[in-house]
Amino acid sequence: MASTNHVTTRWLGDMAFESNNPSGLTFRIDASPEDGGEGSGLRPKALMLSSLAGCSGLDVAGMIRKMKLQVSGFQIETIATLSEEHPQTYVSVRVEFHFHGDQLAHAKLQRAVDLSVEKYCGVIAMFRNFAELEFKTVFHDS
Amino acid sequence: MASTNHVTTRWLGDMAFESNNPSGLTFRIDASPEDGGEGSGLRPKALMLSSLAGCSGLDVAGMIRKMKLQVSGFQIETIATLSEEHPQTYVSVRVEFHFHGDQLAHAKLQRAVDLSVEKYCGVIAMFRNFAELEFKTVFHDS
Repeated sequence: MASTNHVTTRWLGDMAFESNNPSGLTFRIDASPEDGGEGSGLRPKALMLSSLAGCSGLDVAGMIRKMKLQVSGFQIETIATLSEEHPQTYVSVRVEFHFHGDQLAHAKLQRAVDLSVEKYCGVIAMFRNFAELEFKTVFHDS
Repeated sequence: MASTNHVTTRWLGDMAFESNNPSGLTFRIDASPEDGGEGSGLRPKALMLSSLAGCSGLDVAGMIRKMKLQVSGFQIETIATLSEEHPQTYVSVRVEFHFHGDQLAHAKLQRAVDLSVEKYCGVIAMFRNFAELEFKTVFHDS
């Protein structure tokens, strides 16, 4: 049977919402004050970038663990350009994988990134349908 | 100048990440225990559904305010089916707008939903590139 994801997003009044997640956790969404909100919640469009980074990051973190790689720091920067015309969509996204450490296994980490980007990450596969994606790996050897 | 969104998603060790948001807030991402995490953060793929519901919900909430409509409750259900093959992507999403109240202006609320779905919501526009979308409005008159 095909698996499904079901999310409920409930209006709290004004421009605030509460959304749930299969984890059992809930979180708040709100518009910025410029857009009539109070800024007391996450802005929804940027959540798509967290979704992409989280999806790929979990792949890479799983491979770091499996391959017992030494990594002291790892972050993903997602920098997305929005279309000028409305509705505003992401037209391009630069995804940077930054690894920090003094024993970074460059080739293995690059392989982990490549596997996520090319094979495993469903969110990246969805983004490829509407945005130009650029990937970059940066090793910060200390 | 084209506007950009920049999100940083930082590894916290194991399968946990912290992601930021243009609101200034941060939140935690984690894998489920079945996937080697502790379940102590949001799962990333479902965040895309919160992004869609939040984007469209903010459009509708803005119109409820602008048109001074009487709505005692409003929630969006997003039910998405994932592909069986990997990487798993959303192949179809049903988006249900539920309005509750005793003075629901059906036609105006439907118009607000239609404007968001067809014109305003950038996240819906992005989803149209990879998933089959189905929209439904349900009025719960009390």
